Amino acid sequence: MLKKLFYPLLIITFILSALSHFMHWGAEVEFAFAGLAILFAAGLLGKATESVAHYAGQRIGGFLNATFGNAAELIIAIFLIKEGLFEIVKASLTGAIIGNLLLVLGASALAGGLKYKEQKFNDHLAGQNASLMMLGIIALFVPAIFVKTEHISDENTMTISIIVAAILIFAYIGWLVYSMVTHKDMLEDHVDTQASHGEKPAWTKGMSILLLVVATVMVAFISEWLVHTLDTFSSRFGLSDLFVGAFVVAIVGNAAEHSAAILLAMKNKMGAAVEIAVGSSLQIALFVAPVLVFVSLLFGKEMDLIFTTIELAAIGVSVLIATSISRDGATTWFEGKLLLIVYVILGVSFYFV
Amino acid sequence: MLKKLFYPLLIITFILSALSHFMHWGAEVEFAFAGLAILFAAGLLGKATESVAHYAGQRIGGFLNATFGNAAELIIAIFLIKEGLFEIVKASLTGAIIGNLLLVLGASALAGGLKYKEQKFNDHLAGQNASLMMLGIIALFVPAIFVKTEHISDENTMTISIIVAAILIFAYIGWLVYSMVTHKDMLEDHVDTQASHGEKPAWTKGMSILLLVVATVMVAFISEWLVHTLDTFSSRFGLSDLFVGAFVVAIVGNAAEHSAAILLAMKNKMGAAVEIAVGSSLQIALFVAPVLVFVSLLFGKEMDLIFTTIELAAIGVSVLIATSISRDGATTWFEGKLLLIVYVILGVSFYFV
Amino acid sequence: MLKKLFYPLLIITFILSALSHFMHWGAEVEFAFAGLAILFAAGLLGKATESVAHYAGQRIGGFLNATFGNAAELIIAIFLIKEGLFEIVKASLTGAIIGNLLLVLGASALAGGLKYKEQKFNDHLAGQNASLMMLGIIALFVPAIFVKTEHISDENTMTISIIVAAILIFAYIGWLVYSMVTHKDMLEDHVDTQASHGEKPAWTKGMSILLLVVATVMVAFISEWLVHTLDTFSSRFGLSDLFVGAFVVAIVGNAAEHSAAILLAMKNKMGAAVEIAVGSSLQIALFVAPVLVFVSLLFGKEMDLIFTTIELAAIGVSVLIATSISRDGATTWFEGKLLLIVYVILGVSFYFV
Repeated sequence: MLKKLFYPLLIITFILSALSHFMHWGAEVEFAFAGLAILFAAGLLGKATESVAHYAGQRIGGFLNATFGNAAELIIAIFLIKEGLFEIVKASLTGAIIGNLLLVLGASALAGGLKYKEQKFNDHLAGQNASLMMLGIIALFVPAIFVKTEHISDENTMTISIIVAAILIFAYIGWLVYSMVTHKDMLEDHVDTQASHGEKPAWTKGMSILLLVVATVMVAFISEWLVHTLDTFSSRFGLSDLFVGAFVVAIVGNAAEHSAAILLAMKNKMGAAVEIAVGSSLQIALFVAPVLVFVSLLFGKEMDLIFTTIELAAIGVSVLIATSISRDGATTWFEGKLLLIVYVILGVSFYFV
Repeated sequence: MLKKLFYPLLIITFILSALSHFMHWGAEVEFAFAGLAILFAAGLLGKATESVAHYAGQRIGGFLNATFGNAAELIIAIFLIKEGLFEIVKASLTGAIIGNLLLVLGASALAGGLKYKEQKFNDHLAGQNASLMMLGIIALFVPAIFVKTEHISDENTMTISIIVAAILIFAYIGWLVYSMVTHKDMLEDHVDTQASHGEKPAWTKGMSILLLVVATVMVAFISEWLVHTLDTFSSRFGLSDLFVGAFVVAIVGNAAEHSAAILLAMKNKMGAAVEIAVGSSLQIALFVAPVLVFVSLLFGKEMDLIFTTIELAAIGVSVLIATSISRDGATTWFEGKLLLIVYVILGVSFYFV
Repeated sequence: MLKKLFYPLLIITFILSALSHFMHWGAEVEFAFAGLAILFAAGLLGKATESVAHYAGQRIGGFLNATFGNAAELIIAIFLIKEGLFEIVKASLTGAIIGNLLLVLGASALAGGLKYKEQKFNDHLAGQNASLMMLGIIALFVPAIFVKTEHISDENTMTISIIVAAILIFAYIGWLVYSMVTHKDMLEDHVDTQASHGEKPAWTKGMSILLLVVATVMVAFISEWLVHTLDTFSSRFGLSDLFVGAFVVAIVGNAAEHSAAILLAMKNKMGAAVEIAVGSSLQIALFVAPVLVFVSLLFGKEMDLIFTTIELAAIGVSVLIATSISRDGATTWFEGKLLLIVYVILGVSFYFV
């Protein structure tokens, strides 16, 4: 029954959400429709990712999901930079990284772990991911420590930021070549691929990719409409800009990653779920953030890569715990709970700043 | 001969130590009798833990040992909180954590490693322990960094501490469910269990548990009497409160863990030794410390969870090195020496503060 | 052809470099001859290390290479301490540690990885190295944190430094006993040893060791002559003392390790390359630096072990990323690239201080 009504409801809720947004029906109504619409769009997205993963491997499926998901964040950030709101951009980048590493990965491991005792994935990939995440925090920490402890002029701070940004993009391109071309086989997920041999995907390869794009764009639009309604709520509940940027926006803005990863984990495809969560945060640290430095230059502005101490601390502990948990190439419900607990501790601390 | 005299000497030295304590025979005499008495009581404790481990598995044996051992610390800390001596409480918690991770684990690995070339234990458990220890330092670091770098009011600091404390207790209960119920088999120590099949324990299961409780209570009492004599010595040698709290009290107060863990390691039951050392420090970070926050509220006082920078540094490096060494599920004499060396470095640094 | 001319050219370039240095032919000429001479001497060094590694195992070969390489650094540092230039000594020690962990290890992994898909080495050794490196940073961080956050007198700072230095030397001697005697077999590199069975070394065992010593001494001399010409260049290009000490001097001063490690990696003997790079930086942190504290006392001076915040940050991130990458006992070209990228990020940051 629900299966039959899925596509009609997907379209209807999307249209209602769009109408309520553009015709300003009021924050409460917009919030309700967007909330409903995103549920269905996320469902489509999960199915499409799974189908693509069947044809192209879990790595490519996860990578595509993460990329389309981050495209939305990139677009929102560009608008914020144009307005000169650098601090909110950095807060939302921080929120996206820790949201993916703790909330998305944690919820996936917990949801999947309640159904399966232990969920394995490629431990080669987990090790490489850990080293890359390490590079991400090093690239954010080193300039920050130098700028905070030595007397470095604003001009030199910007120069360091530009050089480090260029280096990170160079590293990320190298990672794509490495993981998609030269060492593709070593990082693939044999465990899960075999397990899913029995199932037949609903769509052809081309159709799957098309639907993946469509679903991601839908989720991206709806999540942006949702973010717009948050102003009303945040002023009503007295939330700080930092908290809204790093937690509320990040949670809603990552809806695409959340839903797809959890659905995949519940189907015992933890490899793809990890790829979405970790891959997405890697992409933000090594690609989106550096690109935004250059975007700021295009607008004649200067956004450096120096994050605040508490943002760095939040990113640092997220990478530490996510690395420690995923390094052995397996997750359980308790490890998911641990990640979520760290997310709550960070949320509580940010709330009181 | 010595074997025959063991029980009589155990009882005699305990009674002499008790008499000297309650009748105030002078610090030197009390110290001497307590020192003798703790040797025999610790011997009984080691045997009882080993016997319980035979029936219930090394995990349960180690857990019971750690729990009874920390019960003494909890009781002492409650008295200190009642007096408002929060700083000494935190120093002794710090000392207990680093003492277990460095001194107990290090001495066990060294003592066992001098007899056996390499001692293996469940590496699944080692990985989980590492992630939990990571949670422990994150829970202590994050609020501290926020409070030290941002302007957070005392009231909010206390609120953050209470929430984080509640979360940690919630995490610890989850860990017990996970390690004792849902994933018990995965974390058990097959290597050592097989090795000890040949031996026959001296007592029945019930008797073993009874003796474990009795021995722990004896050790706990004697170690408290020992701590009382330390005032005299510390003022005579000019030691600071911080050093006495973090090192002298912790060494004596952890006598139960020390003796049992070392004896087990020398019988090639490194799994149980690790469980005692790491399990005990996890229990302090994730259960004892948070419970004390709530205890302070019961007394109408407010002890927060914000440790000093050097306490955090000490806990942080202890977790780092203990994690690095135990992660592969094996220890050698040199790794034990490394842990002891870090303990000495911390001791020297604390001594000069 | 080139093979036949190798030894004559080695001798001619060495003599020309020596002449230009002692007869002051001018910085540019000295630089050119020394640059040529070091190429040939490094070539001999690589061959000799490889030959020694064939007879005595890759560990011993790597250890000897690292030791002779660091002997030069030790000698240069002693002269600097005599002049009271403590800050330059510490900058060059920092540079040697990060240079070995990032530049030498990174270049080796990249060069070897472009030829071989994955290069394996003993993962036991990698784990032990990681724990030892951890001890190294702990020994540098703990006193620094205590001195920087608490009020510790200069006298006590020196006392802490002396005790920690003594402990580190004690730890390093333990490591030699452990890795060369008691656990030699466990840390040996079976993978690579088998792979090289087919080849026949050019020299006998005694001849190989003699040539290793000769080649290292040649490289050490030439690199010192090179360092002397750098003053001219650094003042011409406006480089700071810190940058020259930590990067330029370290790169040139580590020429012995660089060349040998890269040549070995390209012959798929990654185990020996890792031993040179990681072993050399361990030796500096656990042996050379502590010895220099005592050397300073011999000259009636007091050099403590307290490094600056940015030096500690640089060492810390280098150990983190090198540990993360080498822990699994295998390297690829991308991991080499990652290490080099972190080196460049540190170089850029130091350049702008």
